[in-house]
Amino acid sequence: MKEWNIYLSGEIHSNWREQIKTQVNSQNLPILFTSPATNHELSDDCGIKILGSENEKFWHDHKGAKINAIRTRTAIEKADIVIVRFGEKYKQWNAAFDAGFAAALSKPLIIIHSADHQHALKEIDAAALAVTKNVDEVVKILKYTIEGKL
Amino acid sequence: MKEWNIYLSGEIHSNWREQIKTQVNSQNLPILFTSPATNHELSDDCGIKILGSENEKFWHDHKGAKINAIRTRTAIEKADIVIVRFGEKYKQWNAAFDAGFAAALSKPLIIIHSADHQHALKEIDAAALAVTKNVDEVVKILKYTIEGKL
Amino acid sequence: MKEWNIYLSGEIHSNWREQIKTQVNSQNLPILFTSPATNHELSDDCGIKILGSENEKFWHDHKGAKINAIRTRTAIEKADIVIVRFGEKYKQWNAAFDAGFAAALSKPLIIIHSADHQHALKEIDAAALAVTKNVDEVVKILKYTIEGKL
Amino acid sequence: MKEWNIYLSGEIHSNWREQIKTQVNSQNLPILFTSPATNHELSDDCGIKILGSENEKFWHDHKGAKINAIRTRTAIEKADIVIVRFGEKYKQWNAAFDAGFAAALSKPLIIIHSADHQHALKEIDAAALAVTKNVDEVVKILKYTIEGKL
Amino acid sequence: MKEWNIYLSGEIHSNWREQIKTQVNSQNLPILFTSPATNHELSDDCGIKILGSENEKFWHDHKGAKINAIRTRTAIEKADIVIVRFGEKYKQWNAAFDAGFAAALSKPLIIIHSADHQHALKEIDAAALAVTKNVDEVVKILKYTIEGKL
Amino acid sequence: MKEWNIYLSGEIHSNWREQIKTQVNSQNLPILFTSPATNHELSDDCGIKILGSENEKFWHDHKGAKINAIRTRTAIEKADIVIVRFGEKYKQWNAAFDAGFAAALSKPLIIIHSADHQHALKEIDAAALAVTKNVDEVVKILKYTIEGKL
Amino acid sequence: MKEWNIYLSGEIHSNWREQIKTQVNSQNLPILFTSPATNHELSDDCGIKILGSENEKFWHDHKGAKINAIRTRTAIEKADIVIVRFGEKYKQWNAAFDAGFAAALSKPLIIIHSADHQHALKEIDAAALAVTKNVDEVVKILKYTIEGKL
Amino acid sequence: MKEWNIYLSGEIHSNWREQIKTQVNSQNLPILFTSPATNHELSDDCGIKILGSENEKFWHDHKGAKINAIRTRTAIEKADIVIVRFGEKYKQWNAAFDAGFAAALSKPLIIIHSADHQHALKEIDAAALAVTKNVDEVVKILKYTIEGKL
Repeated sequence: MKEWNIYLSGEIHSNWREQIKTQVNSQNLPILFTSPATNHELSDDCGIKILGSENEKFWHDHKGAKINAIRTRTAIEKADIVIVRFGEKYKQWNAAFDAGFAAALSKPLIIIHSADHQHALKEIDAAALAVTKNVDEVVKILKYTIEGKL
Repeated sequence: MKEWNIYLSGEIHSNWREQIKTQVNSQNLPILFTSPATNHELSDDCGIKILGSENEKFWHDHKGAKINAIRTRTAIEKADIVIVRFGEKYKQWNAAFDAGFAAALSKPLIIIHSADHQHALKEIDAAALAVTKNVDEVVKILKYTIEGKL
Repeated sequence: MKEWNIYLSGEIHSNWREQIKTQVNSQNLPILFTSPATNHELSDDCGIKILGSENEKFWHDHKGAKINAIRTRTAIEKADIVIVRFGEKYKQWNAAFDAGFAAALSKPLIIIHSADHQHALKEIDAAALAVTKNVDEVVKILKYTIEGKL
Repeated sequence: MKEWNIYLSGEIHSNWREQIKTQVNSQNLPILFTSPATNHELSDDCGIKILGSENEKFWHDHKGAKINAIRTRTAIEKADIVIVRFGEKYKQWNAAFDAGFAAALSKPLIIIHSADHQHALKEIDAAALAVTKNVDEVVKILKYTIEGKL
Repeated sequence: MKEWNIYLSGEIHSNWREQIKTQVNSQNLPILFTSPATNHELSDDCGIKILGSENEKFWHDHKGAKINAIRTRTAIEKADIVIVRFGEKYKQWNAAFDAGFAAALSKPLIIIHSADHQHALKEIDAAALAVTKNVDEVVKILKYTIEGKL
Repeated sequence: MKEWNIYLSGEIHSNWREQIKTQVNSQNLPILFTSPATNHELSDDCGIKILGSENEKFWHDHKGAKINAIRTRTAIEKADIVIVRFGEKYKQWNAAFDAGFAAALSKPLIIIHSADHQHALKEIDAAALAVTKNVDEVVKILKYTIEGKL
Repeated sequence: MKEWNIYLSGEIHSNWREQIKTQVNSQNLPILFTSPATNHELSDDCGIKILGSENEKFWHDHKGAKINAIRTRTAIEKADIVIVRFGEKYKQWNAAFDAGFAAALSKPLIIIHSADHQHALKEIDAAALAVTKNVDEVVKILKYTIEGKL
Repeated sequence: MKEWNIYLSGEIHSNWREQIKTQVNSQNLPILFTSPATNHELSDDCGIKILGSENEKFWHDHKGAKINAIRTRTAIEKADIVIVRFGEKYKQWNAAFDAGFAAALSKPLIIIHSADHQHALKEIDAAALAVTKNVDEVVKILKYTIEGKL
């Protein structure tokens, strides 16, 4: 493969995506990363900002979530590998939804989470090809997957 | 359709499945329900009980989660409709995973949750064909879907 | 085949479905028919009647259209043959949508329309395996398809 | 993604496609647009012009519609996003057919229509990830989808 | 499997289908056979008999061929095994088309032909799981496939 | 689900299939089992016995292997669960092939093998939802999967 | 689309492929053509020339036909459009097989044949989006499909 | 096709991949080869080296096998042709698994093995489009497949 498409799903409140990209670039791995929109506020409000305001919070969120889905579903379907990070905050049900979506499409899944979430994530871990604790492990897997060496 | 296959995913700590079944039966709707194993303790421990104990909690859970997946994935793939209930307790990432899995297979999704979870579930609600607040609404949707009347 | 599943899409303001069923029954053809909900008012209002009222007509309609989709998409996906009738009234874009949906799934399509609509329906007719003028022609096709005789 | 493939379906009697392209180009969005043949007369007559005349209008149209389908179906299948505009004139059943075709292939759908058509398009709107009123909203969605900002 | 669906494609001018059915019935093999309409004249003329006459032979045949396709494509898609017999007469391109259609759907193919056609059918034989000379061999294969014995 | 279809692949030189069936029957689990032809000699020679002898061993085996594939591929594709047992004798590459075939179709896989084969089967075990040591463990998994209890 | 992949199936005893390519090149249409191996003798004998001789003509042909299938099936699966020409000589069952294979994969089909073959090719014509008499018509369709003009 | 993607599965203890690449390069065939990680020790231990050690050999292997699957499954799914070599040593069940996986995805399969393994590999050979004895035959097939000549 000349270039790998990898989707980075999940937590948007830490800089883990940039950490991965920095390490991957320094190793010259041929990867094209995609991700959800990572501006939290804009991600919440894109629907009403583009299509007009709503009185109901449900529809406010609904319009935004659907617009975000244009980007995220396309990215998952194009991805060779889907990496999902579960952070410490929020419910993160959309991360779990992405993992399920990717699993049904038989995409190789790599999960990142701390030990605290181990039991609660057992079904998602069971669908993954690798369960990692941090960005360093992920980059090693990508290097090994692409180059066959460490 | 002579009979509808409907998978009831999510919360296993209240009797919502029985409530649906009771109402559906009293209305003679031709539905075959499937569900995950709803014995929480056995669901957690089925792996080690059948295949032998593990020292690591991760593998303890891993073996169980995979055995549970035999039942749940088969049920989702056979389902005409997938209903997912998010309750008040626990992380419920497996429920969100099931919703994503079903969405990728283009299964009609019905979600049940209280108003408290509205914002956190916006992406999953956006993938659903109906977002309900309780069992009564679900049964009305099933009745209308199957019989075309209320 | 022991029984054929046939979805009757489109116009809900004449009794063409009953005409087909009457003729098919009198000939003992083994067909299980499905159809959208044909109560027009209920079809429009099912969303708010089940899930609660909306101030905006768009969301009023949106909730109803999605609930109707649970029935119609399932029926199209299960169908061996999809029959779509275009009547004289209304825009009937949902009928054309159903035809496109069925075509993408490679379902055999039979279209019913009067000569008036010929030019406007040319793309849909081009995707069909039969373009008919009335119910009698449809029943003959069903009889021939199932029994190999007229 | 390096480049997005977007199919512009529907109305061919206004310059909405050029408006989108102009705005998209001025923002340097990496999009490859496809569309149906937009020469209305040639689109109607391509069949007989290439393959010979027909006495019957039905076959005249049939030959043309099938040749047009070579382009349109290929474009929909290759598309990452399908945008369908419903204008003020004509039946536009082919636009609705395209929307149904795209929906069955799980393509993200963006619909453009005026308020007048809201009720008649409710089933198609319900299958879309965004319902817009004009070209400006569409371009904002494309910018946000591709760049994650507005 | 409780019952096997087997489609009998190809030659309609000898009684090979009846021979297979007779042998299969005498052995109580649980098979549901499907076939194209085997009345040659009606098969040619079904289009104009049902939908009205045509001046052009091309369209006369076109209407009939499409109506026949409702039956044949459905039967191939439902079949567990597709058996195609090439006889001594006619071009039989529809038989070869059916074989290609079935091969693309990964249906197990059994071909029946005499030694005369060996070279001309080499590509089709290469896509088959069995190439037979007569009905007796076919029935033995069916018996072995279903019962695991001869 | 009213009845589960389960394919029993692999070793044909011990009575493990009968052991499973006996236990399953005594527990009244609703399972329809399928399997390859388990008469080893006939399985090797079915090609030449039905279709005529061959001078080359390669073609002798080729004809037989293809006829066997009619049964085995159909059974895998129809199966809800695929169980593969690796025994002590022979290369058993066909068992590993079946496991790969089932994995590509996203079928839940249960593997049975002794500790001796653990390292050599690690890739196949990694694709399975359960790795078991004996028939008793398999039956417990089936009971738990179908009934949700042990 | 930046470039169209078009497979040219069928007759290998006239220079119709070169005629199409010459015309297409002179019009600068962005098409990448693929075709079967068109050296008839080598196409027949590639199996034994590469893998060793066979005593039986059936296996001689079988080995060659399978090697040819590596090229032809890959080309059909990659193609945006499949064009099949039926000439005057030979049985050409492989051309009809290719047409069926392409049809099952929903590839747009263009058929070329003379009036003599009209009735015998009616089923294949019925599955095509264009039935042409010669190379000139094909090139016009390609120009119109790609550029939207004639 | 501008470039062929070919996956080289199986034996990692001889230099057959390099032999193929050398010959292919000297003939300027446009092929992009992929392969599993061919460092045997690292392939066995990648799981624990990246994700941490395990007390149980089963989990040691399990983690490694899953990480290897990220590379191998992606490569098979992207491949136009899958070539599997069975060598003289080891069980090589992963090679057979890859062959089954590729077969279920309808990938053209080329097998390489010595005469010793003929009977044991008969099911896999029966699913292949070419069964070869050595690298030279493989390269000839690739040349013929890509260039249509020898």
